[in-house]
Amino acid sequence: MNINGTPTRTLRAHPEKRAIDIIDQTRLPHALHWVRVATLDEAAHAIRAMQVRGAPLIGATAAYGLAIALGDDASDSRLQQAADLLGATRPTAVNLHWALARLLTILQPLPPERRLAAAWAAAAAIAEEDVAQNAAIGQHGLGLFRQIARRQGTALNIMTHCNAGWLATVDWGTALSPVYAAHDAGLPVHVWVSETRPRNQGLLTAWELAQHGVPHTVVADNAAGILLRSGRIDAVIVGADRIAANGDVANKVGTYLKALACADNSVPFYVAAPRSTLDFACPEGAAIPIEERDGDEFRHVHGLDARGVPSALRQLPAEAAVANPAFDVTPARLVTAIVTERGVAPASRAGLLGLYPEEARG
Amino acid sequence: MNINGTPTRTLRAHPEKRAIDIIDQTRLPHALHWVRVATLDEAAHAIRAMQVRGAPLIGATAAYGLAIALGDDASDSRLQQAADLLGATRPTAVNLHWALARLLTILQPLPPERRLAAAWAAAAAIAEEDVAQNAAIGQHGLGLFRQIARRQGTALNIMTHCNAGWLATVDWGTALSPVYAAHDAGLPVHVWVSETRPRNQGLLTAWELAQHGVPHTVVADNAAGILLRSGRIDAVIVGADRIAANGDVANKVGTYLKALACADNSVPFYVAAPRSTLDFACPEGAAIPIEERDGDEFRHVHGLDARGVPSALRQLPAEAAVANPAFDVTPARLVTAIVTERGVAPASRAGLLGLYPEEARG
Repeated sequence: MNINGTPTRTLRAHPEKRAIDIIDQTRLPHALHWVRVATLDEAAHAIRAMQVRGAPLIGATAAYGLAIALGDDASDSRLQQAADLLGATRPTAVNLHWALARLLTILQPLPPERRLAAAWAAAAAIAEEDVAQNAAIGQHGLGLFRQIARRQGTALNIMTHCNAGWLATVDWGTALSPVYAAHDAGLPVHVWVSETRPRNQGLLTAWELAQHGVPHTVVADNAAGILLRSGRIDAVIVGADRIAANGDVANKVGTYLKALACADNSVPFYVAAPRSTLDFACPEGAAIPIEERDGDEFRHVHGLDARGVPSALRQLPAEAAVANPAFDVTPARLVTAIVTERGVAPASRAGLLGLYPEEARG
Repeated sequence: MNINGTPTRTLRAHPEKRAIDIIDQTRLPHALHWVRVATLDEAAHAIRAMQVRGAPLIGATAAYGLAIALGDDASDSRLQQAADLLGATRPTAVNLHWALARLLTILQPLPPERRLAAAWAAAAAIAEEDVAQNAAIGQHGLGLFRQIARRQGTALNIMTHCNAGWLATVDWGTALSPVYAAHDAGLPVHVWVSETRPRNQGLLTAWELAQHGVPHTVVADNAAGILLRSGRIDAVIVGADRIAANGDVANKVGTYLKALACADNSVPFYVAAPRSTLDFACPEGAAIPIEERDGDEFRHVHGLDARGVPSALRQLPAEAAVANPAFDVTPARLVTAIVTERGVAPASRAGLLGLYPEEARG
């Protein structure tokens, strides 16, 4: 995708410098600031503090983080220590564990002196795969969008939640990849962007849609219901942090509410994710750990003056208790279809195994 | 209710000064600031700018605003002009129109010289009725809460949305009145408070619950789904801005999403409102006008630093389109029961007419 017209990925690898550059997404959309990550601790911090976020980008960053960690010491113990540290940064996105497991499988059999180069190559392969898979998701999702557009004969109104776009991946995005594919194919599309409290990732979505010239409107998360009930949304598409074997979907908190409103108004609810988000070892959504993040994330609020304009940044009283679950689980019955790099499938064990028959066991 | 232990209402009338004092709720919870309202324009501004908000308090303020407007001129034309101006401040809450219509019915037959005193008396009657009705709502709602508590034998976990408490009325509140009644009766109760973007009225709820010593936890609106799905909420109770004759409920945007999640998890969803919120002339929710407020209300956001702490107040790019519907409609089928000053009824025409048989016509 482009920033100011220049093709750009969200992660730039510099194997010769044993470092990567990432965008500090906590400063978007107000400032575009690249950060050099050159140590294991910096990589872990980047994930934990959400400088990088989005399940696929977390996976790629963790892979490069492991490569960075092996720069001085590629022993078995260093390898395990780095994988443990990176694996503990965030609990819900399974891509993180998928990427680390993949590198460990490749690196552990190798002698230490060959591990460094192999780690950089394996991380690069994960990043390249992510780009290719997301492009494929875009084309499969575009097929779904074309069906809806043909049925109704007007511009498409798509709602998304959080940011599952270019910024959440190495390139293209998951949920937004079909939106970009539609836009680029000349299919008129407008995106309803939900703010996504408490971290406001909707503003990242608005920013990247603006970079690509896709019309969009930001709304409060609370507005999804009335927009769906009044017929202003043709489909909702979101990414995922983990999809269980039965098709249950863990994604940014608030996703489940949108899925309920879709079902109540007969609007399709799609989930777009690459293979690395599918957790065939996890039987159902109830088994997915849900990250509880620091309540400080929304303890800071602004006052409003009499014109409704925020006056200054303020803090909730310290004695006010807050809770901050970062994800929720949408049961498979509310998911119209799951879109992966291999195609479109019903949200069920049978549907997912139809796309990935190699996962069928016993 | 109390502020710092002192019994206080949200509105203080000073007929001798032809003025009222209100709390500027746009400055809560950061500052408790009383504002003198002494002109018609100030009264209209207070409602429009949400210095006062909450359907019942809007109704009472409008009634006093009409009384204030008659201070210099109580002619027919002044009466109508003032009612028109006040009636146009906000479209969704029907209590506003109910209060103005009630005053017009009383005042229009009177000679101009008797209207001023009659207007102050009628406004005071509306305020006193509001207090008494809300106290009755509290007792009826307490009965519902006792049933749930008896069934499960533990402290009650109640979720609410927006602020339908003491601050939204002249005293006690609607949705929160049963919470205060439960707390005062020694029934342990904890309240999940949703932030209520974009205006953050949940912070008003947290503030007034803290004043009364009721345990509570603030969460992002998006968290309602996972809290309900994980069994952490025993009932949701909200206020209303207008209830149609068939039991459809217009309330703060986001209410419908909570009602859907209650239905999906077999958790009761209650709506508490006085008679003045019922609009028997409105056949169903689709006929209720939904206010679209200025998008500037959430165009101002804060950046986050790498620790997730907001750095400064910033503004969304001016070119970012925003939409801001202030209310949504929850269909009657999702409402477990409506609690009014007369009791508890199913959310249906028959249920509401059971409480208000005098409204049955033809």
